[in-house]
Amino acid sequence: MKKIQSLSGMMDLFKGSDISNSAENIFKVEKALKDIFISYNFSEIRTPALEETDLFKRSAGDISDIVNKEIYTFLDRNNKSISLRPEGTAGVVRSIIEKKQDSTTNKFWYIGPMWRYERPQKGRFRQFSQAGIEILGYEEGNSEYELMSLICNIINKLSIKKPTIKINHLGNPKTKKEYCDALVSYLRPYSNELSETELERLNKNPLKILDSKNENTQKILANGPSLQEFLPNENIKLINSLKDTFSEFCSIEIDYALVRGLDYYSGFVFEAVSDELGAQDAFLGGGRYDVLTEKLGGKELPAIGMAIGIERLSNISSLDNTEDNIVSFITITSNLEPKAFKIAHHLRSLNENINLDMNLSNSSLKSKLRRANKIGASHALIIGDEEIKNETILVKYLDDELTEQELVSYDDMYKFYKSL
Amino acid sequence: MKKIQSLSGMMDLFKGSDISNSAENIFKVEKALKDIFISYNFSEIRTPALEETDLFKRSAGDISDIVNKEIYTFLDRNNKSISLRPEGTAGVVRSIIEKKQDSTTNKFWYIGPMWRYERPQKGRFRQFSQAGIEILGYEEGNSEYELMSLICNIINKLSIKKPTIKINHLGNPKTKKEYCDALVSYLRPYSNELSETELERLNKNPLKILDSKNENTQKILANGPSLQEFLPNENIKLINSLKDTFSEFCSIEIDYALVRGLDYYSGFVFEAVSDELGAQDAFLGGGRYDVLTEKLGGKELPAIGMAIGIERLSNISSLDNTEDNIVSFITITSNLEPKAFKIAHHLRSLNENINLDMNLSNSSLKSKLRRANKIGASHALIIGDEEIKNETILVKYLDDELTEQELVSYDDMYKFYKSL
Repeated sequence: MKKIQSLSGMMDLFKGSDISNSAENIFKVEKALKDIFISYNFSEIRTPALEETDLFKRSAGDISDIVNKEIYTFLDRNNKSISLRPEGTAGVVRSIIEKKQDSTTNKFWYIGPMWRYERPQKGRFRQFSQAGIEILGYEEGNSEYELMSLICNIINKLSIKKPTIKINHLGNPKTKKEYCDALVSYLRPYSNELSETELERLNKNPLKILDSKNENTQKILANGPSLQEFLPNENIKLINSLKDTFSEFCSIEIDYALVRGLDYYSGFVFEAVSDELGAQDAFLGGGRYDVLTEKLGGKELPAIGMAIGIERLSNISSLDNTEDNIVSFITITSNLEPKAFKIAHHLRSLNENINLDMNLSNSSLKSKLRRANKIGASHALIIGDEEIKNETILVKYLDDELTEQELVSYDDMYKFYKSL
Repeated sequence: MKKIQSLSGMMDLFKGSDISNSAENIFKVEKALKDIFISYNFSEIRTPALEETDLFKRSAGDISDIVNKEIYTFLDRNNKSISLRPEGTAGVVRSIIEKKQDSTTNKFWYIGPMWRYERPQKGRFRQFSQAGIEILGYEEGNSEYELMSLICNIINKLSIKKPTIKINHLGNPKTKKEYCDALVSYLRPYSNELSETELERLNKNPLKILDSKNENTQKILANGPSLQEFLPNENIKLINSLKDTFSEFCSIEIDYALVRGLDYYSGFVFEAVSDELGAQDAFLGGGRYDVLTEKLGGKELPAIGMAIGIERLSNISSLDNTEDNIVSFITITSNLEPKAFKIAHHLRSLNENINLDMNLSNSSLKSKLRRANKIGASHALIIGDEEIKNETILVKYLDDELTEQELVSYDDMYKFYKSL
C-alpha cells in the first residue's frame, strides 16, 4: 500500500524523529522564551491560523514577496479568499482593532505555527514556529528600552552563540520619505545596472534596495546618500543611548543600512544575528510600526514589536538539559494486575515533581530494567506475584554506582516516593 | 476604511478579549493537561497542520462527516490536494510510519489547533484546540489501565464538574463483524422508518446507528440485538475490571451502546461526559485502533488513544487561580531614564519567580499606581529624578492593608527583591 508522506517542508517533531533541528531543542527553546515573556509580565495572545487574505495584503504591502509568492491562499466553501498566516503581527493588530483594544495599551507575546510556501532548503520550513512580542499603545521611548532588555535577556538566557544586535532608526515618516526620495534620485541614473527586482523596489519600496545581496548594487550604494545624514538628532541620540545602556549585556552595533523588509516599519528597527547561522544570519527582528493599526482600519496607535524564528534559535542556543525526575514502575506479575495501576495512580497524586513511567509492555524484568535505565529513571518500583500477595514492593536504585534494592511496605514506599 | 474581521468561528484569545470561553481558562487548562501528560512520562509530538488530503480520507473513512463536509481542503501551488488537519491521530500515525517508529513502542501527547468547517454554534469553533494521547505498540491490557488512570487524573486535577466516564468494548474484529451483521439483519425490515443518513450508515458503518438521536430509531434498537450478547467473556471482564479499579477515583459507567464515530476503533472505547455540557456532553473520548497503522501503509501495530476538546474542558473545569508574583516598576523622571531600564534588567536576573511589570507609559504616578493595583502587583518600585540623583529607589507595598513605603539603596532593594 502506498505510504502517505508528510508534505515537503513540514516537520514532524518528537524525540527521536531525527531531524537536524532536534525536536527537544525546539520544545525547550519555546519553553524558555515563554518563561522570559512572562517574567516581563506580558500576556499571551493567540489569533487564528486563518485570516482573510486581504489582511496580509494590506499589512505587508502588495509587492512583498510574502504575499505574492509565499502565502498559502485558498477559497473556503463560501468562495472567500482566506490564507494561512505567514507572520504574526497582522493577526494581532486585526484582533485588537476588532476587540476594540486600539485605544488602550497592551503588551502581548505569542508562540505558534506560521506557513510560507518557500522552496524547501536547509533551515527553512513551510510550517515553522514563530514567537513574537507586540507592545501596543506606547509612544517611542520606554518601549524601545524594554524591548532591548528583552532581547538581551533572550540572548543570554538561551546562551546564543556569537550574537550581535544590530539597531537603526528610520526616522519619522517625513525624514523617511526625504531619504527615500534622495535614494531614488541617486539611483535613477544607474537603472540599467539594477536587477528587475531592484527596479521594482526602486518604484515601490526603495529602502529595500539597501538589503540587496548584489555586489555591484552595494558598490553603487556606498557612494549614495546615507540614512544617517537625514536622521534627526534625537533619533541618533536614541539609538546611541540604547546601545550604551545595554552594551554591557550584549554586543550591539548601529547599522544605518538596516531597513527590515516590511513597508510599515518606521522609527527604531533592529535585528539580532549570529555568526553561527551562515548567510541568513538573523534569528530575530522587528521595529516600530506606528502606522499599521490605522492602515488596517483601526485608530492611530503607536506600536512596536518583534518576531523570533524558533527553528533558527534552536540551532544556536545551548540550553541546559534540565533533568526530569523519572521513576520507572515495573510489573512482572503472571497476569494483568489492576492493583499495580491503582498504586501507580495513588503515587501520582503524592508527588507531582516525578514523572512516573509505567512500563506497559509484557516483556521480561531484564528488558524492563534496560528501558528504565535508557529513559534515565533514578529508581524502579517493581511488583511481582509475591509482592502483590505480601503487599510489598521492591525499590531498586538505578544509579550507576548503586545497585541497592529494598523490599518495603506500601506505606514505606509512599513515604519514600514523597521524599524524592 | 473597511475593517477586516476575523473569520467566522475563529477565536482571538487574550485576557480581556471577552469571549464566553475565557482565554485565560483555555491557557490554564492546556498548561494543566501538559503537566499531567509529563507526569505520566509521555513525550510531546508535534505534526504539521497540513497533510495530504488522502491521509484523512483513508483514516477516517470516506463516508465520515469530517472528510465529506467539514475538512478544509485546497490545492497547493503544485495542484496537490492538501488539508488542514481536522483531528490529531492520523498525522501522528502517518508520522510514526514515515519515521519508521511503527515496530516500536511510543507514548505521545500533543496539544494544538485543529480545523473543521462546521456551522458556527455555541461551543463549536472552526479552529479549536485539541489535546491528545497516543499509546503505540502495546497490546490490549496495560495501556487500557494507564489511559483510565490518566482520564481520572485529568478529571480530578481539573475539578471537572459532574463528570462520568462511559466505557465499552467493541470486541475483536470478528465479533465486531458478527454483531454488525446481526444489527443489519434486524434493522433491514425497518428500513422505511430510518432516515437517509441512517440508511447510509446501515450500509457502510452500521454501528454508528447506535448513536442515533432519533427517538423512534432508539425504540427500534431497544428490541434489537445487544452488543453485550456478542462480546467474548474476557472483553466484558476487562471493562468490569477497569470500572472496579478506578471507581473510587471517578464515576464510571459501562455503556454497551457507546460505539464512537470512527471506523477504525475496535476493542476498548470510552468517552467522558459532563452533565454541565448540555446535548453535546462529551469532552474527551477515544479507544483502541489496532488496524489504523496498517491501513495507512505501516506495519501492524496495536494502539490506543484519546482526544480532548480544550474549549469544552475549559468550560467545565475550575482550576485555581495560581497567583502570579507581580512587581510593578514605575519611573516618574522628567526625562526618559535609561538607567531605570538597566536596573530593571538586572532585577530580572536576580529572581525569576517574579513578573516585573515595567510601566511604559508617560502618565502620572497616580495613574501608574492605579495600574499596578489593577494588575495585582504586590509592590511598586518607584524611581524619580531625586532617586536617580541619590541612587535610591522607593519600595511601596501595595497590599490593601499596608500602605508602607521605604526609600532604600539599590543594594538593599536587590536583596529585598531576591527574597520575594
